[in-house]
Amino acid sequence: MDNRPIGVFDSGLGGLSAVKELQKLMPNEHIIYFGDTGRVPYGTKSYETIKKYAEQDVRFLQSFDVKAILAACGTVSAVALDELKQKFSIPLYGVVDDAASKAVHETKSGIIAVAGTEATIGSGIFERKLSNYGLSRYIGVACPLFVSLVECGFYKEDDDVVLQVCERYLGFLKNTGVDTLILGCTHFPILAPVISKVLPGVKLINPSFEAATQLKQRLNDEGLLSDKNDQIVEYYVSDQPIKFANVANIFMGHGIEAKMVNIEK
Amino acid sequence: MDNRPIGVFDSGLGGLSAVKELQKLMPNEHIIYFGDTGRVPYGTKSYETIKKYAEQDVRFLQSFDVKAILAACGTVSAVALDELKQKFSIPLYGVVDDAASKAVHETKSGIIAVAGTEATIGSGIFERKLSNYGLSRYIGVACPLFVSLVECGFYKEDDDVVLQVCERYLGFLKNTGVDTLILGCTHFPILAPVISKVLPGVKLINPSFEAATQLKQRLNDEGLLSDKNDQIVEYYVSDQPIKFANVANIFMGHGIEAKMVNIEK
Repeated sequence: MDNRPIGVFDSGLGGLSAVKELQKLMPNEHIIYFGDTGRVPYGTKSYETIKKYAEQDVRFLQSFDVKAILAACGTVSAVALDELKQKFSIPLYGVVDDAASKAVHETKSGIIAVAGTEATIGSGIFERKLSNYGLSRYIGVACPLFVSLVECGFYKEDDDVVLQVCERYLGFLKNTGVDTLILGCTHFPILAPVISKVLPGVKLINPSFEAATQLKQRLNDEGLLSDKNDQIVEYYVSDQPIKFANVANIFMGHGIEAKMVNIEK
Repeated sequence: MDNRPIGVFDSGLGGLSAVKELQKLMPNEHIIYFGDTGRVPYGTKSYETIKKYAEQDVRFLQSFDVKAILAACGTVSAVALDELKQKFSIPLYGVVDDAASKAVHETKSGIIAVAGTEATIGSGIFERKLSNYGLSRYIGVACPLFVSLVECGFYKEDDDVVLQVCERYLGFLKNTGVDTLILGCTHFPILAPVISKVLPGVKLINPSFEAATQLKQRLNDEGLLSDKNDQIVEYYVSDQPIKFANVANIFMGHGIEAKMVNIEK
């Protein structure tokens, strides 16, 4: 039993999708969330910059004496997680491993696709992970506009712009034998209903859900779940941009109150 | 005569549109450009964060002993310029004043619209400037997806996604009597051909062009133009993201070589 909090961070508010899953699965846990809204997005930036930002994010969460940290950001998980694990002794988890494992479990055709940011796809991380699980047929698709689409309110199921952008990025997968698509960025599950229209019959994998499920399992196995009976979630951000409340609402279905921190210090 | 360089900065690479105009108008000038690609975009962030970032950008350019600085960023010009002018003694110019003046000069109907980022429109700056010029009928339209659209390569004239997004944001202006539209963000002139399809007959104002024209005039009036006969442009960025070359190419029509700086230090 360990009543210390769990730390969760993301480049912005996309990681709230993981908080939602963690809340459902572990109603006793105290969660500290950090969203780097002052420097979002990460997925179009260089690997060096992403690593620098991610390290600052981890240091911030560490200051709360957390028992584990989930990098609820596809880009950080893809580009920075291995180095972070070498630098920090605290247990660090990402959203890549469990999604890859789940996808390999689900596919029947043996051909998996991953949609992600440019940094995530460019890193080749999913290719390596899937290959570790014995899978050799992989298609990576960078979808750089998806994050902004969601954050600007273009995500509704009947929105023709959203449908066209999804079709533009992912439509070519229809004739490839792909039967499983990993939504490799925490923003992308919001677009799942539209992506399913473009790719009917393709199984969509939500890494936030897989990561939350496995994190619960690991904490349980090691006897580290909390036995407190009151769920607390504290939110910190590096900026409260104009559309903050709207974007939080897209992910959580309700507004959140967040405290500001100067993450560069 | 003053052979010191001119400083130009932007949240990212949009300000290259101003560099292009300055190069055409003032072939003798040495230009130092800084693009804050490590923290782009500014237009969706809070006023406090935009001001902090802009101040760091000005300090960086100041280190080159520049004779004047152009904030080639609609958001900075709208939100931070007045405070920057109070803090720094160096002549500082933005892209709002000259665009507003030009628009008032052009309009016949007396109804002007401004398309900008959320921060720019939310600041009400154009409303105040236009009102100073005696104009009282103004429509501000926040177009938050435009910057990402351009940076992700969605800007071509025959792209139906671009047309639909422009129509979504700006189509309602057709029945308002607006005859002049200020493209109040340095990325937006890239979309001008599509915007003209949505709003045929509406005069589009490019603030980078107006600011460059007026800057030349001011330097000339004060005898501060350079008499060197070799144009130098030096580019600095706070990150070299994956798509750097593509985005530079959109604005300049050719690639650029930029040096990296740590702007947070």
